[in-house]
Amino acid sequence: MKLNEEQLIYLKRLIEPARIQTGKEIGEDYSHDELGGITAYPDVLIKVISTEEVSKIMTYAYKQDIPVVVRGAGTGLVGAAVAVCGGIMIETTLMNHVLELDEENLTVTVEPGVLLMELAQFAEEHSFLYPPDPGEKSATIGGNISTNAGGMRAVKYGVTRDYVRGLTVVLPNGKVEKFGGKIVKNSSGYSLKDLIVGSEGTLGIITEAILKLVPLPNKSVSLLVPYEKIEDAIETVPKIIKLKTTPTAIEFMERNVLLFAEEFLGRKFPDTKSEAYLLLTFDGSSSVQVESEYETVAQYCLEHGARDVFIVDTPERRDAVWSARGAFLEAIKASTTEMDECDVVVPRNCVAEFILFTHSLSKKFNIRIPSFGHAGDGNLHIYICRDRLAEQEWKCTLSEVFAEMYEKALKLGGAVSGEHGVGYAKKKYLRKQVGDEQIRLMREIKRVFDPKGLLNPQKVI
Amino acid sequence: MKLNEEQLIYLKRLIEPARIQTGKEIGEDYSHDELGGITAYPDVLIKVISTEEVSKIMTYAYKQDIPVVVRGAGTGLVGAAVAVCGGIMIETTLMNHVLELDEENLTVTVEPGVLLMELAQFAEEHSFLYPPDPGEKSATIGGNISTNAGGMRAVKYGVTRDYVRGLTVVLPNGKVEKFGGKIVKNSSGYSLKDLIVGSEGTLGIITEAILKLVPLPNKSVSLLVPYEKIEDAIETVPKIIKLKTTPTAIEFMERNVLLFAEEFLGRKFPDTKSEAYLLLTFDGSSSVQVESEYETVAQYCLEHGARDVFIVDTPERRDAVWSARGAFLEAIKASTTEMDECDVVVPRNCVAEFILFTHSLSKKFNIRIPSFGHAGDGNLHIYICRDRLAEQEWKCTLSEVFAEMYEKALKLGGAVSGEHGVGYAKKKYLRKQVGDEQIRLMREIKRVFDPKGLLNPQKVI
Repeated sequence: MKLNEEQLIYLKRLIEPARIQTGKEIGEDYSHDELGGITAYPDVLIKVISTEEVSKIMTYAYKQDIPVVVRGAGTGLVGAAVAVCGGIMIETTLMNHVLELDEENLTVTVEPGVLLMELAQFAEEHSFLYPPDPGEKSATIGGNISTNAGGMRAVKYGVTRDYVRGLTVVLPNGKVEKFGGKIVKNSSGYSLKDLIVGSEGTLGIITEAILKLVPLPNKSVSLLVPYEKIEDAIETVPKIIKLKTTPTAIEFMERNVLLFAEEFLGRKFPDTKSEAYLLLTFDGSSSVQVESEYETVAQYCLEHGARDVFIVDTPERRDAVWSARGAFLEAIKASTTEMDECDVVVPRNCVAEFILFTHSLSKKFNIRIPSFGHAGDGNLHIYICRDRLAEQEWKCTLSEVFAEMYEKALKLGGAVSGEHGVGYAKKKYLRKQVGDEQIRLMREIKRVFDPKGLLNPQKVI
Repeated sequence: MKLNEEQLIYLKRLIEPARIQTGKEIGEDYSHDELGGITAYPDVLIKVISTEEVSKIMTYAYKQDIPVVVRGAGTGLVGAAVAVCGGIMIETTLMNHVLELDEENLTVTVEPGVLLMELAQFAEEHSFLYPPDPGEKSATIGGNISTNAGGMRAVKYGVTRDYVRGLTVVLPNGKVEKFGGKIVKNSSGYSLKDLIVGSEGTLGIITEAILKLVPLPNKSVSLLVPYEKIEDAIETVPKIIKLKTTPTAIEFMERNVLLFAEEFLGRKFPDTKSEAYLLLTFDGSSSVQVESEYETVAQYCLEHGARDVFIVDTPERRDAVWSARGAFLEAIKASTTEMDECDVVVPRNCVAEFILFTHSLSKKFNIRIPSFGHAGDGNLHIYICRDRLAEQEWKCTLSEVFAEMYEKALKLGGAVSGEHGVGYAKKKYLRKQVGDEQIRLMREIKRVFDPKGLLNPQKVI
């Protein structure tokens, strides 16, 4: 226990009883994230409801030297929101209000606990699109900002960072600061907002976000394109980009992953006869434009090795295809006893080489390594499955496989994480990527914000 | 002189004679930037040609405690590239090579001294668009990145930051670091790249940049829309955004500024009968889509107070309109004895209020304050003209006018600078905007990168 009796009494006076739990009252869920490889309980769990409350808790914790970690929906994969040093866990899911839609400035202001799917729906109901579209729709926006999540539509629309206009942040010393705002341009000092984005809850606590919206495209069509071999599918992707079309999303998927998803969902995918598939989406404000783009691409695919092109334009088909895509992570998880993931990003013309490399690792180490991912933006989601391996062997093999994978990614000019973050699990790989000098800069920046090292300690760097 | 004889000898041995000047050899141009309000000479001017050279100079300067400032084309307006503490000026215009076009990853890699107009042309020749489009086409890309310049097309495409994928940076200690890369997504530690963008040469020296390109839109049409009053023109802008169309650019201009431009260029603008104009551009891959967008907007404008709508679709008209727009700054400068500028950004639905406020200031202080700017993204370029004021009166009035303007901008939720930066001239206004705590964070971050405070000292914070 990191807190003494007096400290507990103080916090319990500050917070309504229904929103604070201590010791054994805290559910098992709060001891880990989605992958579950890193486990630790906080001493106190507080479901916060306002910026002021977060500020009060943080001010007190900082004075009293109590570690604090923030958690959203707990959908992370690298242990970033696990209380590895105990202390206070601030949970944001009650701060789940959309505060304002500003149609003249194209912004929506939200609390951090709003779920991605809630925001997506809210935007759509008002004929807007919030473009970032990570697979995990039940993640919170606070979490998405903290990992600079990218998702499917990054090919055309970019990543979460590109949609964060302003942030209200509680600093480790408890002060409340606003970075950015509704403004479109900004050249007023260092971009502290952009430091917070992607900092995985280590520099400050996001309590409000002003996000940019775009008008909802009227027309959206997906293409499902089967290939005989995965490399044929993926190698087509940079060529499609070179055609100067602008797909919204380009995903790749292998047959084995589709079959897991079918089993997991109890629902058929439109086609599973081929070894590999590309799934592309095109959107826009006019049918003519969207049709012209997808016809150019369909034609190109058919002339360059695709076995067929299925147009996904009915609601049923779209639902079947995208719900399978959304279930990949859960489906792979259900297919094995335990797994760990690798979320590297490489230049998009190196994706095929990287995936073939994971196939060779799978053979070399005799371990299953299913994958899927965002072929259009080079961000891969690769899963190493334990299956029947004994504890010791699993740990050894995993470590060797990871070492080879991250080394390969760096050789290709890639990075450790495209959107899941570094958290607790990938720290040593980040160091290899950026080197000592950048780690020094990051550590000292951390110290500028958090001289006592109390906010989400032991993470990222 | 900040350098002694021994130091000069060292540098002269390092650099070819044609690329190094000292003392009185240094031209007057290097003592100021475009506005000229802040003047100081460096002791040594070095025209660098490579990252390695910059690293060697910086390493030496840091050991020897010599201040260093980097200058591109000198088109800045806030003194950011003026050597206010003397020392070494590193000039980047010889590092003006486009190093690589990667059509599969949609990136172009450039040296920092490439001019914006050179990059724009290069991209267009390869059927790509580099979207950021600041008015000053002869600025360097290094300068654009250092101020996070935005330009005309920010309404649709965003600002320079959104197009910087990777940077090679020489740190104050001389170490060469790469931040980011060709990758589209990144969630691997704090975004040091985003700290460098907009830091006005105070944290590191950019020696190479990987920039994102987009396919060149096939079709582009501008509309010139005359109004009787400036507020009618500007108040239409947020309504146009609310129509869910996506203009590429929305500029506003007043008649008096147009007349200066006509005189300056010796060339007629298509129409100068009205008091105020909006200039809108629409671009896209299909004529149908572009036409549908501009027709919607034209219709709306005609129904809501516009006196007419001129379609600018011939090369001659386009050239006449946009060359006038490009000449505004120079034309206003030529109309007066001296001027200073205010580059505030406010939410786009507050632009009209702000412009009317500058009109009232103009009356109150009996001073000319012409303006133009990016109505679509809320970024205003406002010029306070000295005309026949005596030195002392000019300084007093300028200071009072600035104080009122910046206070108003902050009240409206705006910021000190949209794209010109803080530099030397706007430091006190930045402090008012962000407050002591954020200034503390920025200063300490500066110290993390530059503990001796030698790189572009006295700037930003």
